[in-house]
Amino acid sequence: MNLPKKVTIVDVGPRDGFQMEPGFIPTEQKIQIIDRLSETGIKRIEVTSFVHPKYVPQLADAEEVLARIKRKEGVIYEALVPNAKGVERAIQAGVEHVSMVISASESHNKANVNMTVAESLKTLKEAVKLALSHGIKVTTGVGTAFGCALEGWVPPEKVEAVADEFLDMGVCELSLGDTPGLANPAQVSEMVRYYLQKLKGTDVGLRLHFHDSRGQGLANVLAAMLEGATIIDTAICGMGGCPYSPGATGNIASGDTVNLLEAMGIDTGIDLMKLIECERMTQDLLGKELPGQTIKSGPIPWALKKPKSG
Amino acid sequence: MNLPKKVTIVDVGPRDGFQMEPGFIPTEQKIQIIDRLSETGIKRIEVTSFVHPKYVPQLADAEEVLARIKRKEGVIYEALVPNAKGVERAIQAGVEHVSMVISASESHNKANVNMTVAESLKTLKEAVKLALSHGIKVTTGVGTAFGCALEGWVPPEKVEAVADEFLDMGVCELSLGDTPGLANPAQVSEMVRYYLQKLKGTDVGLRLHFHDSRGQGLANVLAAMLEGATIIDTAICGMGGCPYSPGATGNIASGDTVNLLEAMGIDTGIDLMKLIECERMTQDLLGKELPGQTIKSGPIPWALKKPKSG
Repeated sequence: MNLPKKVTIVDVGPRDGFQMEPGFIPTEQKIQIIDRLSETGIKRIEVTSFVHPKYVPQLADAEEVLARIKRKEGVIYEALVPNAKGVERAIQAGVEHVSMVISASESHNKANVNMTVAESLKTLKEAVKLALSHGIKVTTGVGTAFGCALEGWVPPEKVEAVADEFLDMGVCELSLGDTPGLANPAQVSEMVRYYLQKLKGTDVGLRLHFHDSRGQGLANVLAAMLEGATIIDTAICGMGGCPYSPGATGNIASGDTVNLLEAMGIDTGIDLMKLIECERMTQDLLGKELPGQTIKSGPIPWALKKPKSG
Repeated sequence: MNLPKKVTIVDVGPRDGFQMEPGFIPTEQKIQIIDRLSETGIKRIEVTSFVHPKYVPQLADAEEVLARIKRKEGVIYEALVPNAKGVERAIQAGVEHVSMVISASESHNKANVNMTVAESLKTLKEAVKLALSHGIKVTTGVGTAFGCALEGWVPPEKVEAVADEFLDMGVCELSLGDTPGLANPAQVSEMVRYYLQKLKGTDVGLRLHFHDSRGQGLANVLAAMLEGATIIDTAICGMGGCPYSPGATGNIASGDTVNLLEAMGIDTGIDLMKLIECERMTQDLLGKELPGQTIKSGPIPWALKKPKSG
């Protein structure tokens, strides 16, 4: 198989995962989890969101989290921002890299941020400009890029229309998101091939965000990597979900993803045993079973150490 | 992606899934589940096992199940047999297709059937001969073909040594099994390519048996299909497990697999909604949550009906 040698894992659990939890996770616990995650060798963590606390009360402690985590050398602590106000808060909190998202599906964007796609683009244009003028790196993501729980099939042209506007803004990374977990490997393969070709010769990276709602998350990761994708979102222990898919599992689990990649000889830079211990701690702190499988089954032994033959 | 147009799903849930259940599933319920499964359009079901009831009391009702299920035209009702005595029982019960398994790992084979691999091969040689002489089709499977929970890495030569003995016996299908859920897509890709090449020009089919212990089951299916594999074991609702991986999920779920394949335009012949209803019924009858995800999230809409564009 023609697979990349190295893949960058972005753990979005402390943002995408935590925000789906019904009860408030004490700030102290959030910090404990992020600090433990920082020690695994991971390079990028999306630690919180500067969305108005009225909408996401779970992440109302964004400033405190960012002020109190132990910043590990070599780890980038990122945050989601919804608008210029969010960028201002992120700047104040010393964030170096922010993410912003628009859904390609009008219904989902409306449900998510109560704006049309055009209004969102206008809002984010201003936010991106502000971030870039402060030397902050910006990832912009197209949500529902592979289908929408509300609208169903999302035509690729709609995704590209949003992506093109983002690219015009001068962002450093484009993300394609499958929050409802509707993507399949054939579709992922086609999309990733198309966007990697489109971004060829630019400095813009392509990042993929998959959920595991129908058990297909890692198959989609495989399809993306076979086309050359090297930046993958995961969430600690498979936290997260989709408000429109009740009962669905969440993001692809960091432990499952790193286990699979390392077993295939793809370097993530992450110490799998430390990651699994961090996932176990998270499960213990939250006091409930989370979807990740590798914390239950244990890692593939040769994901830790390569076999001598074969 | 270069994927097969059609894939045959073999639901082994009533054998591999049921036998892992701690409490006895009433015969009436087993029949109800198998009959419902028969109505989904599936072509092959492994309905039971003729292992001595002392070892697998759950399947002590093999004869009764086979006598009382409604045999649907076009569906093959298969059974696992451990030896010639099992073949005799299968013949009496009117079974047309039997499966037999040996683990490539000595420790696992010992733990599983209390025989060395050489002893197992001798036992199965006799059993295969008896089955073939009665016009019964035989699948022989190499278990722990991708790794062993007891021994760890299993050298491919050990797998091939067993496979070669099987092929000499004149079987119609060779199966490679990953019961502990240790396989990764790169390894699957290599193995499937090798075995499809080896079997080229013969009438022997290649069948793959994956478990989802680390969330990687469908990624392995994808890898196998990319090499041309077209016969895949699944289990209703992801039942099953591995006695040596406590807490691990079981076989790849039929619903998740069919959902993914149909979404990619691969024809399984199965009515996904009927399959999901059958999985829901199974969950209700067993009175507990089973690992399958698609029964929770619902199918990808275009797994049911193709999108107009894209």
